[in-house]
Amino acid sequence: MASIKPSVPKGTRDFSPAEMAKRNYIFDTIKSVFRKYGYQQIETPSMENLSTLMGKYGDEGDKLIFKVLDSGEYFEKTKISKYINQLIDDIACQREFQNQIINNVQDHNLIFLWPNIKEASLKQSDIEQQLISLLRNSLNSKELSQQISEKALRYDLTVPFARYVVQHQNEITFPFKRFQVQPVWRADRPQRGRYREFYQCDADVVGSDSLLNEAEFVMIYDEALGKLGLKDFTIKINNRKILSGIAEIIDKSDNIIDLTVAIDKLDKIGLDGVIKELLEKGFTQNDIEKIKPVILLEGSNEIKLRSLRSALIQSDIGLKGCDEIETVLDYVASFGLQVANLELDITLARGLNYYTGAIFEVKTNEVAMGSIGGGGRYDDLTGMFGLKGLTGVGISFGADRIYDVMEELNLFPAAANQSTKVLICCFDKEGEKYALPLLKQLRSNNINTELYPAGAKIKKQMEYANNKQIGYTIVIGSDEMQSGLLTFKDMASGLQEKLATEQIIGKLI
Amino acid sequence: MASIKPSVPKGTRDFSPAEMAKRNYIFDTIKSVFRKYGYQQIETPSMENLSTLMGKYGDEGDKLIFKVLDSGEYFEKTKISKYINQLIDDIACQREFQNQIINNVQDHNLIFLWPNIKEASLKQSDIEQQLISLLRNSLNSKELSQQISEKALRYDLTVPFARYVVQHQNEITFPFKRFQVQPVWRADRPQRGRYREFYQCDADVVGSDSLLNEAEFVMIYDEALGKLGLKDFTIKINNRKILSGIAEIIDKSDNIIDLTVAIDKLDKIGLDGVIKELLEKGFTQNDIEKIKPVILLEGSNEIKLRSLRSALIQSDIGLKGCDEIETVLDYVASFGLQVANLELDITLARGLNYYTGAIFEVKTNEVAMGSIGGGGRYDDLTGMFGLKGLTGVGISFGADRIYDVMEELNLFPAAANQSTKVLICCFDKEGEKYALPLLKQLRSNNINTELYPAGAKIKKQMEYANNKQIGYTIVIGSDEMQSGLLTFKDMASGLQEKLATEQIIGKLI
Repeated sequence: MASIKPSVPKGTRDFSPAEMAKRNYIFDTIKSVFRKYGYQQIETPSMENLSTLMGKYGDEGDKLIFKVLDSGEYFEKTKISKYINQLIDDIACQREFQNQIINNVQDHNLIFLWPNIKEASLKQSDIEQQLISLLRNSLNSKELSQQISEKALRYDLTVPFARYVVQHQNEITFPFKRFQVQPVWRADRPQRGRYREFYQCDADVVGSDSLLNEAEFVMIYDEALGKLGLKDFTIKINNRKILSGIAEIIDKSDNIIDLTVAIDKLDKIGLDGVIKELLEKGFTQNDIEKIKPVILLEGSNEIKLRSLRSALIQSDIGLKGCDEIETVLDYVASFGLQVANLELDITLARGLNYYTGAIFEVKTNEVAMGSIGGGGRYDDLTGMFGLKGLTGVGISFGADRIYDVMEELNLFPAAANQSTKVLICCFDKEGEKYALPLLKQLRSNNINTELYPAGAKIKKQMEYANNKQIGYTIVIGSDEMQSGLLTFKDMASGLQEKLATEQIIGKLI
Repeated sequence: MASIKPSVPKGTRDFSPAEMAKRNYIFDTIKSVFRKYGYQQIETPSMENLSTLMGKYGDEGDKLIFKVLDSGEYFEKTKISKYINQLIDDIACQREFQNQIINNVQDHNLIFLWPNIKEASLKQSDIEQQLISLLRNSLNSKELSQQISEKALRYDLTVPFARYVVQHQNEITFPFKRFQVQPVWRADRPQRGRYREFYQCDADVVGSDSLLNEAEFVMIYDEALGKLGLKDFTIKINNRKILSGIAEIIDKSDNIIDLTVAIDKLDKIGLDGVIKELLEKGFTQNDIEKIKPVILLEGSNEIKLRSLRSALIQSDIGLKGCDEIETVLDYVASFGLQVANLELDITLARGLNYYTGAIFEVKTNEVAMGSIGGGGRYDDLTGMFGLKGLTGVGISFGADRIYDVMEELNLFPAAANQSTKVLICCFDKEGEKYALPLLKQLRSNNINTELYPAGAKIKKQMEYANNKQIGYTIVIGSDEMQSGLLTFKDMASGLQEKLATEQIIGKLI
């Protein structure tokens, strides 16, 4: 055992103090903005009943759910185990018949028993065949999982939130504005930037259809990402009803998925690519002529909206979508954005099956990176748990990507390191004794302070301060103890001066 | 599905906004004290390799580890699956022989084949028996688990921390002071106060044998629990070396576990009970006479230490323990405790197999409750992962119990509710429009503010404020819009007055 270097499961990570400090900085910033807008934190258990999760993420999603093994003698209770034991008993029976047959053949005195033995043996064979066929049907992981696992690790925060709302509906005051920052687990193949355990950071409001909520989410993105130091990012907004309208005006409402999947690729494959794909999917040249102006919308959000309205004039739902977007834009305009660009983008379709109104996505323009946030309105989130007619809208921050963006742009402030502010260094036990009241005094002033235990070389103590990114050191030698003036060093600049305790406290507070 | 009320797995909990706010208050307070003493946060993955966890918690612990099912076609790869398939093939073979036998009996022309068939059949029987015996040995949950699960949920924070230190030893600057606040999972039978998912809150330092660390942990308990509002609690301290010394002076070093287990019960079963148990375990009347004065130590810590020293005069290790305790007490005295009582208690033995020096336990004297914290020094934490000779000392806060104590004593400050500070209420769309700049202005002043979307009755809006424990409301009606003086209500006192925006901001900042 001693020789095997320990490791973590693939796709999972340790977070060192330096990484944790940066992650805390991101989460604390986002949480404070959520709170400013009236969102309150909840937490749900890491494990949910398997029945709560299964069937909510499609077949592919079901496969990626980490299932937790039942505890105790779980296998002994399974059908497979029962069948196998029956089969083993059965084989013993069959062996008994076989022996009888063998004896029968050898001992012709028993020949009169032959028909009975034969019949019994064939009957036993039938039972055996039935058992084998039952076994064969059970002999696969999917079937077995249902018998040995009744809990699983949550796959996202949305389904547990829906479960929470339904379970606690009588305690909740609606509209219910909640945020949640917890890890989720997915048995995906790990790759760069894709982990099997990662934090999601969601805010949702359920029980209010006011578009003020949509506008406030735009403001939350603006404020939180702005506070984190991002200087150029775009919040894209669309509305499912506009997409429905586009499908409606070419009379292809049933093909809305094909339509939006194709349009969604405009950025990557260009207009020609989109048209090619649409033609392949059965859209006509005539359809394409009708929707081309919609796909190629340009100009300000106001101009785009005006063009959309005239293109969608025949579609009530399309116009409704335009109204909704306009209301959100008006709210946002009355608040005023600080950093973000807000852009109506009708090619945006993420999670289409799910969203019924607004759709959001956030991208930074400073670094090449996928979306760093997204969300939208869903009219029937809690329907899956039997509570109908509760509308909701929510957004998510992609914390890992935001971390990478901030790292690349060097946006983490030095103060975010959450490390010790000052290290007291001494040469010996005498110095340590001298240092104790100082240590106490600094901490009483709420200054994060450490005293390096006596006995180590000053060089080692300085290395400790450097590695831990401690801002300042105080050295206590015999001169210092005599004069009461302590050597105070700014570790960043290297400047050092002799100061009295009060002066040091003044500098550190 | 619609009719089944969704629930969480037994032993797990949802945390509502009110509970989360209180839990955050506890964790934030403890974390801030950890940081003040130079401890930095890390996080480790929820899942560890099964090999990292198994065998670290004893046989009972191993059973309580939640194992995570491998993903994909995990069962098809198991030995059980292989054996079953072979057995099924084998049964088909055997059936073939049986048919031959039956035919042979019926058709006497084939009688000359009889010996071959019989021999082959018996040989096949042997194979079958071997398969069955292999199967029987695999047909249990323990055996199967090893084949279908290679990951498990962490059981505590200590073993993952040891794994972390060994894995990252080349990046870490020692002494390494880390804290960690994360959930752990145990497949224990749930009962009042015992959960299958709960947070642990640990601080440890590895790579320093200075007793300053022990003293600082006493100070951390004092400061953190004091900040949380506890007014009467006791930090008990003992030292494994003193327990070793007591066993040594009666020449029963090999029976130290029996000895300490018995002494540990002094509180519950009294001296007579302890003596009875010791006699049952093979200690002599003479042994008991020798250690009785040690068990019954009374008086101040100084007096206890003096008595101990004279009782342990023959034991080097016992005296070493006394020296260590004295050093810790001296450090603590030089800092000065604010709230806690520090009490030398030689009956304290928790986790004896583990600890090698100091042992801590914290109890509140205000409420009947088990320990709310504990810890100690262990000389070989990382040895289990092959890194020898690294000493460590650590403590833990029992967050769930601290929560219950604070709830019972009503110690959570109102400000800890983390809710919205003020709710703006309006009657209609016109009021909402009037409210938007106000909403923006309040938030710009970092005041957590909500605007209730237009359309609801004021009564409902007030209920919302009450249920969410929002401190203040602002009502905007036609009078207010005309005069610019808004109705500002303190929800706790019920007092309301008409104020200009600037005055309201002055009251809320």
